[in-house]
Amino acid sequence: MLDFNDSIKFDEKENDLLTVGEMLVDMISADYSEDFECDTYNKFFGGSPANIAMNARRLGIKSIIASAVGKDGLGDFLIKRLEQCGIDTSYINRVDCSTSMVLVTKSKSSPTPIFYRAADYNIVYSKQLEQAVQNSKIVHFSSWPISRKPARDTIEAIIEEARRNKVLLCYDPNYHPMIWEKGHDGLSYIKSIIGKVDIVKPSEDDARRIFGEDTPENQLNKFLGLGAKLVIMTLGKNGAIVSNGRETKKFNTLATEVVDTTGAGDAFWSGFYSGLIKGYTLEKSLKLGFAVSAYKLRYTGAVVELPNLEEIKILFGI
Amino acid sequence: MLDFNDSIKFDEKENDLLTVGEMLVDMISADYSEDFECDTYNKFFGGSPANIAMNARRLGIKSIIASAVGKDGLGDFLIKRLEQCGIDTSYINRVDCSTSMVLVTKSKSSPTPIFYRAADYNIVYSKQLEQAVQNSKIVHFSSWPISRKPARDTIEAIIEEARRNKVLLCYDPNYHPMIWEKGHDGLSYIKSIIGKVDIVKPSEDDARRIFGEDTPENQLNKFLGLGAKLVIMTLGKNGAIVSNGRETKKFNTLATEVVDTTGAGDAFWSGFYSGLIKGYTLEKSLKLGFAVSAYKLRYTGAVVELPNLEEIKILFGI
Repeated sequence: MLDFNDSIKFDEKENDLLTVGEMLVDMISADYSEDFECDTYNKFFGGSPANIAMNARRLGIKSIIASAVGKDGLGDFLIKRLEQCGIDTSYINRVDCSTSMVLVTKSKSSPTPIFYRAADYNIVYSKQLEQAVQNSKIVHFSSWPISRKPARDTIEAIIEEARRNKVLLCYDPNYHPMIWEKGHDGLSYIKSIIGKVDIVKPSEDDARRIFGEDTPENQLNKFLGLGAKLVIMTLGKNGAIVSNGRETKKFNTLATEVVDTTGAGDAFWSGFYSGLIKGYTLEKSLKLGFAVSAYKLRYTGAVVELPNLEEIKILFGI
Repeated sequence: MLDFNDSIKFDEKENDLLTVGEMLVDMISADYSEDFECDTYNKFFGGSPANIAMNARRLGIKSIIASAVGKDGLGDFLIKRLEQCGIDTSYINRVDCSTSMVLVTKSKSSPTPIFYRAADYNIVYSKQLEQAVQNSKIVHFSSWPISRKPARDTIEAIIEEARRNKVLLCYDPNYHPMIWEKGHDGLSYIKSIIGKVDIVKPSEDDARRIFGEDTPENQLNKFLGLGAKLVIMTLGKNGAIVSNGRETKKFNTLATEVVDTTGAGDAFWSGFYSGLIKGYTLEKSLKLGFAVSAYKLRYTGAVVELPNLEEIKILFGI
């Protein structure tokens, strides 16, 4: 079904994209520090599914996010950012836990994030969320919600409902052992999820964490072997290889200037989804994804002021 | 036993003061903000039992802390501060959770802290900790460790061991519903703990949260009624009232200049403990506590460069 020269025929739906997962405050050190002696941190809006929803909205497609934040000032801050972007925030649960945070101390050697998970995984399944799944063309989720219950159960219910309603199901297998429920076999669970979705976009690091060291081509085949219908494997400055199991294509990076890599993956997803929703072929949609990612790389921040999709097409000659 | 004109006769022990409880990173906004729109936060060493241990050390008595921090850069940062103060950090558990954090956004109306509890309540009882209790003259703990297991069980074991070994047991009933285990009756548990210790130091806010609104004298009697042997009730700028059940004394504040109230309670405890350890009467030890608190109030920060106890005595004419 997912052929490079075909476009995806979506049923008529109210909404284009529903992302499900973490909304976070990113607390990032102002300076580089190898020993955590830095005093000053700056707070940013964060969370990949929220970034994708905002980007997609800026590119001109309808998007909503299902998430959970605390009944606190940081939750208000995150929700306000989405509202400023014109996103319906009624699918965001307000819960009796602190809004989740990731603290990043910038380092020349290895910046190790410290995770403060609380509200984010309290996404509960509801009639309203079920209807949002039914009324969307694409559902996207990340590894954060499947790492802990009750969000894990919610994602399982969403997957079933999406498959019943022919919703395109996409998953970002950004596995990190630090976020996973202790004592739960995250790797085998992720493998089971990969078999239930249509599209996955692992990075080389993701693939290594899930399957161990191997060539990109072999890693692609492992994802396909688990049942994914399209695998987009990103290779950093070497672009990406994409396979539907019948055909594998190499895509060169479109980046000419790299200022900040934060949020480049989220930018890809949003450009790619926008292309699919606009009815472009899979190949052209992938190119649009790589173009939006290349555009984002020129600027600092996880979410930047994206132009609309027509401007992206002109800028990158697509 | 706790008479105002008597000093406490401690058995000969290796260590003077053992504090048990939270070590935290305090992440405090640089500016005042009513809507969490402030971007910049500064990180500070925090946690009342750690502050008390450091202050006491500066005042010239031997002190150690039993606590738990993550195996992360923030845990390293906290431990290094204690080491710089010359404190033995071998009673601090390093655990597979993030180092706990409290985020405070300064506000002219009501600064509501957001709590990120993870490592702090993973204080486990061990043979080494049991020996530390046996070898200390005073054991102090706060409400944080009793709010969640396993630290709650550890405190219960410490209380039993302390009573077996005639160690003076002191407890800060700084109850806050936000830190308490959901579904656990914190208020009645705190009441049960008050009956098992020698000295408690509630503020008016603490008393109101535990017993509801009442006069300071009535609140004192409620703490005594639960079984505490000495109750030190602080009244902010109105000083404090202290009772052993037979005699009640009023102490005026010694503060002449109030720059920052953070850590004033911790400064009191450390001055008070230093007085008791040096063999001063209970009344003089209380005055020393209020003097150290007044000294701290002149400076910004939870832990300031305290002079030694002899200088405090001269400065405040005690």
